Amino acid sequence: MKKYSYKDLSADDLNLLCQRPKMDFRSIFGQVEPIIEKVEREGDAGINYYNQKFDGAAPDPIVINPQQKKVSLDSEIKQALDTAFDNIYRFHEAQLPAPLEVETMPGVQCKRVARPIERVGLYIPGGTAILPSTLMMLGIPAMLAGCSTIVVATPPKSDGSVADEILYLAKKIGATHLLKAGGAQAVAGMALGTESVPKVDKILGPGNQYVTVAKMMLQNSEAQIAIDMPAGPSEVLVIADGTANPAFVAADLLSQAEHGEDSQVVLVATNDFDLNICLQAIEHQLTELPRQEIARKSIEQSFSVTVNNLDEALDFSNRYAPEHLILQCQNPELYEDQIMNAGSVFLGKWTPESAGDYASGTNHTLPTYGYARMFSGVSVDSFLKQITMQQITANGLKNVGPVIEKLAELEELEAHKNAVSIRLKEIKKNI
Amino acid sequence: MKKYSYKDLSADDLNLLCQRPKMDFRSIFGQVEPIIEKVEREGDAGINYYNQKFDGAAPDPIVINPQQKKVSLDSEIKQALDTAFDNIYRFHEAQLPAPLEVETMPGVQCKRVARPIERVGLYIPGGTAILPSTLMMLGIPAMLAGCSTIVVATPPKSDGSVADEILYLAKKIGATHLLKAGGAQAVAGMALGTESVPKVDKILGPGNQYVTVAKMMLQNSEAQIAIDMPAGPSEVLVIADGTANPAFVAADLLSQAEHGEDSQVVLVATNDFDLNICLQAIEHQLTELPRQEIARKSIEQSFSVTVNNLDEALDFSNRYAPEHLILQCQNPELYEDQIMNAGSVFLGKWTPESAGDYASGTNHTLPTYGYARMFSGVSVDSFLKQITMQQITANGLKNVGPVIEKLAELEELEAHKNAVSIRLKEIKKNI
Repeated sequence: MKKYSYKDLSADDLNLLCQRPKMDFRSIFGQVEPIIEKVEREGDAGINYYNQKFDGAAPDPIVINPQQKKVSLDSEIKQALDTAFDNIYRFHEAQLPAPLEVETMPGVQCKRVARPIERVGLYIPGGTAILPSTLMMLGIPAMLAGCSTIVVATPPKSDGSVADEILYLAKKIGATHLLKAGGAQAVAGMALGTESVPKVDKILGPGNQYVTVAKMMLQNSEAQIAIDMPAGPSEVLVIADGTANPAFVAADLLSQAEHGEDSQVVLVATNDFDLNICLQAIEHQLTELPRQEIARKSIEQSFSVTVNNLDEALDFSNRYAPEHLILQCQNPELYEDQIMNAGSVFLGKWTPESAGDYASGTNHTLPTYGYARMFSGVSVDSFLKQITMQQITANGLKNVGPVIEKLAELEELEAHKNAVSIRLKEIKKNI
Repeated sequence: MKKYSYKDLSADDLNLLCQRPKMDFRSIFGQVEPIIEKVEREGDAGINYYNQKFDGAAPDPIVINPQQKKVSLDSEIKQALDTAFDNIYRFHEAQLPAPLEVETMPGVQCKRVARPIERVGLYIPGGTAILPSTLMMLGIPAMLAGCSTIVVATPPKSDGSVADEILYLAKKIGATHLLKAGGAQAVAGMALGTESVPKVDKILGPGNQYVTVAKMMLQNSEAQIAIDMPAGPSEVLVIADGTANPAFVAADLLSQAEHGEDSQVVLVATNDFDLNICLQAIEHQLTELPRQEIARKSIEQSFSVTVNNLDEALDFSNRYAPEHLILQCQNPELYEDQIMNAGSVFLGKWTPESAGDYASGTNHTLPTYGYARMFSGVSVDSFLKQITMQQITANGLKNVGPVIEKLAELEELEAHKNAVSIRLKEIKKNI
């Protein structure tokens, strides 16, 4: 872990520290393009070609209806999934927007109503482990929003099957299709549609750089899809003061570090935080981790910044715009208003980041790579669009009409003006 | 205007009718790329090179602080702008989200708070006419959201100046910078930053295909910006029944048609609507329009669909997903719940679309090209991001901790589990 002191850092130094490792998108574009093209040309067969190549399985059929499948789960796992599900459901249910109605002028009624995005694709990474938590994070808001076609895509195991936990949750969130495919081929299948994969309107979910690049390329293509957000490696920034427990801080840093060698781990600590004890705790805890090697590499590339006070800490954090921000300090709630850029925030010693990853209720699909400056994490809103409506009475048009006429004239759009004038004439006639 | 009858249309026919004219993005990518590269390399000088080339002016300085400028406006224009401003302000102010707080389990407190996107760029097209209305539609929500850096970009006139109406509104919405540039060069300047243009986090606003492609390319680049939405030509779909006034319908179709030859104009009418009278009214009104030639070409490429009832009309409209949807029928409010895909909706005979373009209060920056299936128009939300926060008590962690441990174990993320276990041990010790 490299160590810096905030007071020695120039503005340029700060900017450099806040930069994430460069992603070479261009070269990945070149690798992903043929995958998209093959899926576009060959449909299901194209997807299965890459399934076989990358995951060693070519499931047939590649799409199943999860609602027709029976699943049996270990009861403890089922209970844990159900409890997490309920918490996530509760927090997301509260996000359902109420219709909004404003009479902006007498007789001019404006409103806004939400409608579900009808067809959505949820990408659930697989690989070495299964990630049922991600299916809850994407599926629960999709279900609450009322999306009618929900495609869940996840890489098949080498025998062509999908984990029972994934199936269980796919049923529970009301998924209509389960696509046994991962990578850029899964994204392309959902964006373009194939014989058995319905074309969707929006694709959400985390993934490796091929998945991310496929989403980015397809959002700029004639496939006409939206995506949740661009993605980079996962990140945590921990702010600790003298009251923080160094072993807890170590555990939180490591829980980020184990995600991958490219995980971004940042510690911002006041002078009275015992950094050395924390580093020792990291060493000690590392030895017990199955993913020790990955976590160690990530920790080696991480850094700490020593600050004079929490205001400096928050200033640095806002510049960095971390995906996850942990405040292990006295009265962390006092600093809430100073937090400007972050994906999700964890306040106080009993709030580990893994709570938000799994079960507290907040979403874990969050902006990384500095995108927390302008993107929100996934929420019910991610599965809705807002439509505005307006209804004007004859009296209302008498009030607002002359303004429209004047401005349309100013913008040299005579037909826009006439759509009002012709009506105002009719109103006058009837008086 | 081509005429179709809904009952004769197969599913494939319907899909074809709902397709928009193909945009050849790839060839435009090739034209826009060198512009972005030159601006990246040369900064202000790069912008002014293209300013000179495309707009015949190279203003110096290219960025001014609108707050320091004096503006004098015709009093009637000022009054019209102010009234429209107030209506738009009122409707958008009501969109400011309240913080949301849910205790998902005893001791597990989750919340969501909104923060402004700090630096935004607002693109205001210019060209033949000025478009102060677009500056209100982008600037008012930016102002309400509390964005701290607001860059307004608009093409300069040939003498290097900018219209007083634009200056007036730039001051009023609190713009910090006015960039005298249009096209891809303006977008590149805001996305990348130059000597005098601050780099922004998000770029919003309509524009021609070069502007759109520049936004799309830059959102996929290391510039790390968000954009409001992809854009195509403007669109209207009018649903009319026998009670609709054919001259009003004609006026609404024409107010869309005058935007450009590529404007998409669709009429969906029940059998009892007098289509012939409407077509005559179009001819008659056309002759009085300064933009007659443009509107005529657009109307020639437009089409009507005759339906048996309003349910069919709404089914077609939802498939089409128009930017603007006008319902000129009896009791239009009865059909609100059936509207699934549209940007903004205009209900009833006294509600011309131009009301929403200028002054009723709703936003006119709306999804086109079928993107109304998954994008919302610009709103206060477009200038905010939502941050989730959570705070768990020791008791709360005793409640939710075992669930996190179980799920982290299932996903083989031992350090995630340990971040909880180490805390639960500490809690036990202290009992």
